[in-house]
Amino acid sequence: MKVGILGTGDVGRTLASAFVTLGHDVKMGAREATNDKAATWVKQAGPKASQGTFADAAGFAELVVLATHGVANGAVLKAAGPERLAGKVLIDATNPLDFSKGMPPRLAVGFTDSGGEEVQRAAPQARVVKAFNIVGHVSMFRPEYKGGPPDMLICGNDAEAKKQVTALLHEFGWPEVADLGGIESSRVLEPVCLVWVLYGAATGSWSHALKMLRK
Amino acid sequence: MKVGILGTGDVGRTLASAFVTLGHDVKMGAREATNDKAATWVKQAGPKASQGTFADAAGFAELVVLATHGVANGAVLKAAGPERLAGKVLIDATNPLDFSKGMPPRLAVGFTDSGGEEVQRAAPQARVVKAFNIVGHVSMFRPEYKGGPPDMLICGNDAEAKKQVTALLHEFGWPEVADLGGIESSRVLEPVCLVWVLYGAATGSWSHALKMLRK
Repeated sequence: MKVGILGTGDVGRTLASAFVTLGHDVKMGAREATNDKAATWVKQAGPKASQGTFADAAGFAELVVLATHGVANGAVLKAAGPERLAGKVLIDATNPLDFSKGMPPRLAVGFTDSGGEEVQRAAPQARVVKAFNIVGHVSMFRPEYKGGPPDMLICGNDAEAKKQVTALLHEFGWPEVADLGGIESSRVLEPVCLVWVLYGAATGSWSHALKMLRK
Repeated sequence: MKVGILGTGDVGRTLASAFVTLGHDVKMGAREATNDKAATWVKQAGPKASQGTFADAAGFAELVVLATHGVANGAVLKAAGPERLAGKVLIDATNPLDFSKGMPPRLAVGFTDSGGEEVQRAAPQARVVKAFNIVGHVSMFRPEYKGGPPDMLICGNDAEAKKQVTALLHEFGWPEVADLGGIESSRVLEPVCLVWVLYGAATGSWSHALKMLRK
């Protein structure tokens, strides 16, 4: 499958490498087609990896992952071109984190709206699935935990897209995937990112992952 | 210790019985001093159990647990009398759930405010600690899970009160307690209740509990 990754940060590179490892062709998109971090990643990732602008990555891909800073999502999706995302699965791995008041970050939106809903509005014909936002990048691919596996929680409006992302998550090493409903469930999934951050600050753990224990 | 439980529902009765089991004297408070559910509970719980109004329970107690419907907190705390809660640890086990638009419930407040903060404002001299709100009542006392123990996440403004509640949680069978900061962290802890609800709806599990897996 052809995969476009929008973003060159830890999350973008981690997911891009995971897709390459699984045999997919991956184009990493950035504001500039010659982005240094993307170039370094391409060199490391080998022949299935390439780079380009956000629009290049969106146009190339059958499936797109949004992995930029959440507060930049609007600008990134505008640059990518919503028409290039039409009909495609768009995994929103972001959180609308506002670092302007220092650490820990706050959410920039919530309660009556969410980053996931903003993404769906900015790319109205994309089939947006919120995923990966509740866990740190080090755990996103093949998470290994004593007492695992952790749970992935997703949401989105398109049932077929969620099925496809669930199958993908299974390949990524997440056998436990729960579908929490429409994209508006991002309103409760995005706060879980902050719970993850605050738990890290409280415990000094930065590689934790959420599991739902069941009887 | 003398404990006051404000509320006669599943959470109130579960926590009240847990305190009795641990040897504490418990007064269950309700709108009416003769509340039927409280009377049934007292009969069952034995000589360390008693009942009264919200004010009776608050006045009796050294430590108070708020276990009413979250949207009723303001009225309940007014009936209890904030002056009777001054200086006392007040465990807020509630969530501001709005069922008016059907199932699943929504949060009645969030993002820029929270139920926990409302409670602290309604009882300004109480030492409010948010606890128990992220898990169902069946798991609140001595939770037994393969792969456990689950994690309890708390927050509040008073460090001493959080220490006391942490020690209490250990007695309740929660060795893993993380302090997520001031009472404003209720803004992210209360959405976790909805994650719990939506996970239950998605999986059919109603006895799940959150654990943070760590490396």
